Amino acid sequence: MDRAAVERLLRDLKGGKVTVKEAMEALRALPYEDLGFAKIDTHREIRRGIPEAVYCPGKTTEQIVAIVKKMVASRSLALATRATPEIYERVKESLDGAPVAYHEKARMVVAGKTPPARRGNVLVVTAGTSDIPVAEEAAVTAEVLGNRVTRLYDVGVAGIHRVLDQRELLQGAKVVIVVAGMEGALPSVVAGLVDVPVVAVPTSVGYGASFDGLAALLAMMNACSPGVAVVNIDNGFGAGYLASVMNR
Amino acid sequence: MDRAAVERLLRDLKGGKVTVKEAMEALRALPYEDLGFAKIDTHREIRRGIPEAVYCPGKTTEQIVAIVKKMVASRSLALATRATPEIYERVKESLDGAPVAYHEKARMVVAGKTPPARRGNVLVVTAGTSDIPVAEEAAVTAEVLGNRVTRLYDVGVAGIHRVLDQRELLQGAKVVIVVAGMEGALPSVVAGLVDVPVVAVPTSVGYGASFDGLAALLAMMNACSPGVAVVNIDNGFGAGYLASVMNR
Amino acid sequence: MDRAAVERLLRDLKGGKVTVKEAMEALRALPYEDLGFAKIDTHREIRRGIPEAVYCPGKTTEQIVAIVKKMVASRSLALATRATPEIYERVKESLDGAPVAYHEKARMVVAGKTPPARRGNVLVVTAGTSDIPVAEEAAVTAEVLGNRVTRLYDVGVAGIHRVLDQRELLQGAKVVIVVAGMEGALPSVVAGLVDVPVVAVPTSVGYGASFDGLAALLAMMNACSPGVAVVNIDNGFGAGYLASVMNR
Amino acid sequence: MDRAAVERLLRDLKGGKVTVKEAMEALRALPYEDLGFAKIDTHREIRRGIPEAVYCPGKTTEQIVAIVKKMVASRSLALATRATPEIYERVKESLDGAPVAYHEKARMVVAGKTPPARRGNVLVVTAGTSDIPVAEEAAVTAEVLGNRVTRLYDVGVAGIHRVLDQRELLQGAKVVIVVAGMEGALPSVVAGLVDVPVVAVPTSVGYGASFDGLAALLAMMNACSPGVAVVNIDNGFGAGYLASVMNR
Amino acid sequence: MDRAAVERLLRDLKGGKVTVKEAMEALRALPYEDLGFAKIDTHREIRRGIPEAVYCPGKTTEQIVAIVKKMVASRSLALATRATPEIYERVKESLDGAPVAYHEKARMVVAGKTPPARRGNVLVVTAGTSDIPVAEEAAVTAEVLGNRVTRLYDVGVAGIHRVLDQRELLQGAKVVIVVAGMEGALPSVVAGLVDVPVVAVPTSVGYGASFDGLAALLAMMNACSPGVAVVNIDNGFGAGYLASVMNR
Amino acid sequence: MDRAAVERLLRDLKGGKVTVKEAMEALRALPYEDLGFAKIDTHREIRRGIPEAVYCPGKTTEQIVAIVKKMVASRSLALATRATPEIYERVKESLDGAPVAYHEKARMVVAGKTPPARRGNVLVVTAGTSDIPVAEEAAVTAEVLGNRVTRLYDVGVAGIHRVLDQRELLQGAKVVIVVAGMEGALPSVVAGLVDVPVVAVPTSVGYGASFDGLAALLAMMNACSPGVAVVNIDNGFGAGYLASVMNR
Amino acid sequence: MDRAAVERLLRDLKGGKVTVKEAMEALRALPYEDLGFAKIDTHREIRRGIPEAVYCPGKTTEQIVAIVKKMVASRSLALATRATPEIYERVKESLDGAPVAYHEKARMVVAGKTPPARRGNVLVVTAGTSDIPVAEEAAVTAEVLGNRVTRLYDVGVAGIHRVLDQRELLQGAKVVIVVAGMEGALPSVVAGLVDVPVVAVPTSVGYGASFDGLAALLAMMNACSPGVAVVNIDNGFGAGYLASVMNR
Amino acid sequence: MDRAAVERLLRDLKGGKVTVKEAMEALRALPYEDLGFAKIDTHREIRRGIPEAVYCPGKTTEQIVAIVKKMVASRSLALATRATPEIYERVKESLDGAPVAYHEKARMVVAGKTPPARRGNVLVVTAGTSDIPVAEEAAVTAEVLGNRVTRLYDVGVAGIHRVLDQRELLQGAKVVIVVAGMEGALPSVVAGLVDVPVVAVPTSVGYGASFDGLAALLAMMNACSPGVAVVNIDNGFGAGYLASVMNR
Repeated sequence: MDRAAVERLLRDLKGGKVTVKEAMEALRALPYEDLGFAKIDTHREIRRGIPEAVYCPGKTTEQIVAIVKKMVASRSLALATRATPEIYERVKESLDGAPVAYHEKARMVVAGKTPPARRGNVLVVTAGTSDIPVAEEAAVTAEVLGNRVTRLYDVGVAGIHRVLDQRELLQGAKVVIVVAGMEGALPSVVAGLVDVPVVAVPTSVGYGASFDGLAALLAMMNACSPGVAVVNIDNGFGAGYLASVMNR
Repeated sequence: MDRAAVERLLRDLKGGKVTVKEAMEALRALPYEDLGFAKIDTHREIRRGIPEAVYCPGKTTEQIVAIVKKMVASRSLALATRATPEIYERVKESLDGAPVAYHEKARMVVAGKTPPARRGNVLVVTAGTSDIPVAEEAAVTAEVLGNRVTRLYDVGVAGIHRVLDQRELLQGAKVVIVVAGMEGALPSVVAGLVDVPVVAVPTSVGYGASFDGLAALLAMMNACSPGVAVVNIDNGFGAGYLASVMNR
Repeated sequence: MDRAAVERLLRDLKGGKVTVKEAMEALRALPYEDLGFAKIDTHREIRRGIPEAVYCPGKTTEQIVAIVKKMVASRSLALATRATPEIYERVKESLDGAPVAYHEKARMVVAGKTPPARRGNVLVVTAGTSDIPVAEEAAVTAEVLGNRVTRLYDVGVAGIHRVLDQRELLQGAKVVIVVAGMEGALPSVVAGLVDVPVVAVPTSVGYGASFDGLAALLAMMNACSPGVAVVNIDNGFGAGYLASVMNR
Repeated sequence: MDRAAVERLLRDLKGGKVTVKEAMEALRALPYEDLGFAKIDTHREIRRGIPEAVYCPGKTTEQIVAIVKKMVASRSLALATRATPEIYERVKESLDGAPVAYHEKARMVVAGKTPPARRGNVLVVTAGTSDIPVAEEAAVTAEVLGNRVTRLYDVGVAGIHRVLDQRELLQGAKVVIVVAGMEGALPSVVAGLVDVPVVAVPTSVGYGASFDGLAALLAMMNACSPGVAVVNIDNGFGAGYLASVMNR
Repeated sequence: MDRAAVERLLRDLKGGKVTVKEAMEALRALPYEDLGFAKIDTHREIRRGIPEAVYCPGKTTEQIVAIVKKMVASRSLALATRATPEIYERVKESLDGAPVAYHEKARMVVAGKTPPARRGNVLVVTAGTSDIPVAEEAAVTAEVLGNRVTRLYDVGVAGIHRVLDQRELLQGAKVVIVVAGMEGALPSVVAGLVDVPVVAVPTSVGYGASFDGLAALLAMMNACSPGVAVVNIDNGFGAGYLASVMNR
Repeated sequence: MDRAAVERLLRDLKGGKVTVKEAMEALRALPYEDLGFAKIDTHREIRRGIPEAVYCPGKTTEQIVAIVKKMVASRSLALATRATPEIYERVKESLDGAPVAYHEKARMVVAGKTPPARRGNVLVVTAGTSDIPVAEEAAVTAEVLGNRVTRLYDVGVAGIHRVLDQRELLQGAKVVIVVAGMEGALPSVVAGLVDVPVVAVPTSVGYGASFDGLAALLAMMNACSPGVAVVNIDNGFGAGYLASVMNR
Repeated sequence: MDRAAVERLLRDLKGGKVTVKEAMEALRALPYEDLGFAKIDTHREIRRGIPEAVYCPGKTTEQIVAIVKKMVASRSLALATRATPEIYERVKESLDGAPVAYHEKARMVVAGKTPPARRGNVLVVTAGTSDIPVAEEAAVTAEVLGNRVTRLYDVGVAGIHRVLDQRELLQGAKVVIVVAGMEGALPSVVAGLVDVPVVAVPTSVGYGASFDGLAALLAMMNACSPGVAVVNIDNGFGAGYLASVMNR
Repeated sequence: MDRAAVERLLRDLKGGKVTVKEAMEALRALPYEDLGFAKIDTHREIRRGIPEAVYCPGKTTEQIVAIVKKMVASRSLALATRATPEIYERVKESLDGAPVAYHEKARMVVAGKTPPARRGNVLVVTAGTSDIPVAEEAAVTAEVLGNRVTRLYDVGVAGIHRVLDQRELLQGAKVVIVVAGMEGALPSVVAGLVDVPVVAVPTSVGYGASFDGLAALLAMMNACSPGVAVVNIDNGFGAGYLASVMNR
């Protein structure tokens, strides 16, 4: 029952078509979402134009194709993360000519029409080259959500001048996403150089005692520079999304 | 050697007082910061008006007083977190009448002049009453940095309607800070209800298997709602600062 | 706005005192909880007669007293866990003669009128004597919630016959709460002997590698006997509550 | 030596066929189980009609087939969890026409006659679609044990209205099983909405810092709503069994 | 009901004073322990002369005194570990002149008559001087259980010759207990030098990354020399007991 | 320089062929092992007849074959653990007819002549059937080292009577090895029933929160029954070896 | 802009071709690295002749080949660690006859001209044979960096005389690298025998509770002998590099 | 038996006072250390002038005083770390006028004569002011061992220019000790700027998720700049000692 239905109910009550008791019952049984009230509207507003992402691992290709089709149909845009080329092929076949692209480095399928890049610049930085797939997931997500995106890769703290040299890029960003594995030190350094939020993404890149990204995660949680927002290990999508929400 | 010194050097070179070789040597030895070049300027800009916080534990009262005095002198504003009333008294004495306040719930000393609250609303939410000290640290920090702050305490997910009822508060916020211990579920729920960034602060509140906030930290890192930025356990200052940086 | 208020609104609409648009606005702004709709009613039903517990650590005595007073006033019954004798004294003073008791071993304050013990037997078992404070917290909670409670203490697996001898107690229980530290093996053994649910409570009792109850917690999570429900370390209140919910 | 044998021994003693000393010796050597005494009888009662489950990983197909055959022969019903289609085929061949079914989503083999669904409703809820295999293991287990089962999938807290809308389902359940990975927040929310026990099953679904389900496990252990019973990560069978034991 | 009671029952049956049915009932209800059957006898044999230890932390002095009194009365010997001098004084008062000693370094109270040292030599070795309290707990326990004990302290691997020099002590031992904190390397070295079992006790001695003995515990679990039996962190009593059981 | 060389040196000194100073120098440079002195002799004694085991994972087949050949040549007996059938075939080929056997369940190759079983009985117990491979590694190791071995499998605490029934087996053992995964409770129960040492082997068998055997390991470290010696996760060889050293 | 460009700028200023203001602007915009100033020069000095290593896992063969080619071109020497034979073949093809070698045990590709071994001796020690691949990575790295390297493998503490016998090797070393898994005890022992720095490399070799090298890592961090420098688990390259930096 | 005794034995052999067989026996039984042979001599050489440190926590003041007295007597120099002023007073009294100093910030007692600072410069760097106590422990240790020491405190990566400005200090050092808590990023940055070894000391300084230094420890283990040697959390003594061993 949507907003119109509630209004109709109230008119019917006023017009004598339903009794107060019947109206009470109808309202009482009203599914929460269907009320069309502010919270829910807002909720939908939040999602309008912002595709929910399908995280592919652990889902069958059939499930993924079905979800993407439904999302494209109802919202015109869908993202699938950690998608194989096979998933892309299957999604493409199922969409009957609707636009769909495969971002290989980011391992993402983007289906439907992406909005123009109207938001300010999101700078995506990596410490090393092995961090690039996660960074690309973040970058593509931010682009799909309407942000301008600049990439600055392989500027880890082992050669600190590599990032110091890029002060113009850093200063021109509205949000900086920093992707780093190993000791995860780069977000601290970057946050000390800029006055915009830094989204830190730990990656699972590293020798044994990185413990699949735990070392970088803890380092980023403990960043001595305030202004660092940490997301989950290898979660490029989350970083891109968070940056987009920040970038208004 | 500051900007003026570099200019003087160049003039001396032009005027024949130094040779090119001597100028090369002088520039080569130039301390990085003293150049007064853009990166450093920018760096200072970042900090202008944004007080660095003094984390009191592990420092002697003498050290704290000295740092606060120096910060107030050079920047006009200083924060001391996890400060005892004794520290406040000592700071107050040392400042010779400069404004200084003690925020008891937040355990913070704020010295110097705070800016007017010109930035949009930061909503500070807690799951329980035991989370309030951390939340107050976040709230006072955000206020001191010039943000309007609203508090919404004790609305944890055990009674989910408590937060659902506050949709106006949620919708009026530019950033939401969610402070929660135990299972740390509230940021996920809140992030599903708003379209602004959510800063999640795990607290060390809870029975044994909270492991001093680890449970809440991991939960927040794994929030199924995108748009959640996690900071360190009990780090109210960090949350307030991050929210302020986001709130432009 | 409660149920009556909604009904009055609908009557006013029907009677022409408010317009449809005004009624829409009023409903839209309706605080969720105040609707008095089914979900909330149910919610209250859940809590009726079941006191919410105040976990004292991390709260000031003033806060505790205020909460307990309010709970006793509105619900007639309140529990405070991990309460010191001082808290009890302060609560007692504040309640002006309302019934209030201090359970020393359980470290609990129970204020207000407790219901008669009408529910079937909850058997509370401990592996050792050091587990008794947690067990008492569980036992008192279950009693306060209207369950009959039997205690069987110090029957750990080091002398397995101690629990095997008590088959009548085990068989007469509707729910068994097993409280154990160290290796936490007792719930597995007990669950293999009964056909009712076993609530397992790990305690922080033990030498170094118990890691404050982690060893017992993991053991209980991995119980080879199905039918074991694990709650948090040292969480006697949670165990008593869960047992009561199970014991219908 | 069974009950009859003990009785025969006593008769022989009475009849003078054995001496008191011989009877003492015989009783002394009596195998515990074979006594047929109450504890053991009870023990068997517990298991009657409740199939022990065979956890397939780490066992050879030969072992699995042999155990299932023996269980079906002696108890008429057997469950094999985490079973591949190949195991199903092999079990089916070996059973000579006895009823046997393969539940693909649940990865379970059910052999023998299942009882009618006479127990009240067990509601199985998941936060996401990736949690479904574990949920199905729980659901099939509960069904096989004679419970009515309702499924409610993909109602995680990122869109809290999805679960709030289902209040009728929630209120009609005798036990609710909540299966969730990532931050594991759903059990807390659900437990705040119902007055029946909630069995929480953490899953290993999630990005890096879920640490294979540890994040969800800890969150559920720390649920701020009392009434949550936690079982092992991905342990659908355990959840279904526990729910059935609770559902009397 | 003890052995005599069973025998009396059988005689009564034989003598016609009870019927077979009544005898069946009586046996059926027979408390397990009271049967006096082999398993229980054996069980008692195990404990005869081997005092159960009272672990003092978490118990009130009253509880400790009561347990020790009862143990001394029924078994003539009792141990209390981690006991303060105050506990010793209270125990002493309560025992009315029965022998009782306080081992200060070991923090143990030994009450009742200790057996003569008839068993072969148990060598107790420590890596450092800070490990001595735990080592003394092990040594006193072994002595109280009738073992000859030799102490060899402060021979850690930083000066490997210190232990190599003591080959006669090592070769004369029937069991070696090695107590070590920090990296816990000494048990591996010792086990490579002897042909008797080595009981390894990790201690919580060490800088930060010892994590209260976890480092030493893991090291000992991974000892490259076979023949190492690990007990809990700081568990001197357990080591002394295990060594005594091995030393036959 | 071996024993003969030292003797020759001393004779030369006595005979005036070398000076005292030269003899001092020669002794000073003497390789430790080659002295043939007591410590080293003892060291060899330790190893006589006790084969060192080759842990196959991480070694090439060539390395394994070479080590086994050399061990068989010098010590007549060699063990290879975690060996595949292929390794067995390769070892067999290389040994030219020397006795060599493959123990499939234990995944072990035993090459050379095994001693007769002259030592008292080692009882190997498992909680479940999935623990059998580790148990077989322990059992075969103990047999190869000259111990009589009895197996008692699948007697976990979920059906505690299964182990209680076997009191004769338990009482007849000189050492009991208990192999268990999941909650690792069986060693505690067994140690409460016997008066001989219990070697506890945690296995990596279990659902998620067993964390590859960590849960069982911690449980066994915290066994409330004293007399439990813990070895590494899945380390059947270590358990068999330790049991043999204890079994004198 | 390089050193020459700065010099040209200064000459132009002196020659009147640019104004002081223009020179200030040019210097201000000067890319940091391109200045060729001291810090950067130093920085380059550090790297001169010291090849940066390419860690192959997580990079495509194309990326690896491209990086190695560029490094050989600009610096004449390149290392690739954890390289497969296929990577070696691809690198070899791409280098058109430049020297390139594959170190199979070390899993390393070394491309370009290696310097002569002029630095003092680095002794590389392993506890076991399974530690050799990591040790070889360290040894080859040290050799490539111009150090003389000696290998001493399989001298773990289970047979402590194996390392004690090698005092000449130990005393002749300028740095000792000790590679060990399991309990990681060898560095402590070695550091007690030498007066040079010991670089400790934990390896992931071991049974379950080694937790992929965590046990050895913690042990080495807690080495009771001072003078031990710990690097990451399995990080042979890091150890070889650190030893080389120490070996001046 | 010392060197003189061995020589006497050889003389007696030469002089016919003992037979070759007797000499063999005497040598065979010779305590290892007392031989005074090379390994032990070397061992002593290592320690000459290098005081062993007494770690005070967990030792009684009596023990500390006794050890220090003995060390001063035999080696002329002794260090006590984590020493209180009371310990200092007691040590001072006991030494009868021998030089003894208390370093308050470092919490160290230095007794006996310290050598002149002849070794090259050790630079001790901290990230924050709370890291100073650990840094002072390192600095004083290095000074006592004869190294020149320079301090550079509070130059953490939040303001990266603070350390970049100090290139002269960095370049003049023979070894750099970097002390940092929180995210522990500074060693990576410093190691990228220098060509000498960096000793990294994690500290327990930080908010909750530093987990008492674990975050910094892991970060330093994973430093992306090679050339970083990690020591234990808060282990200033170990860092100073290691730096001294490196600084030849």
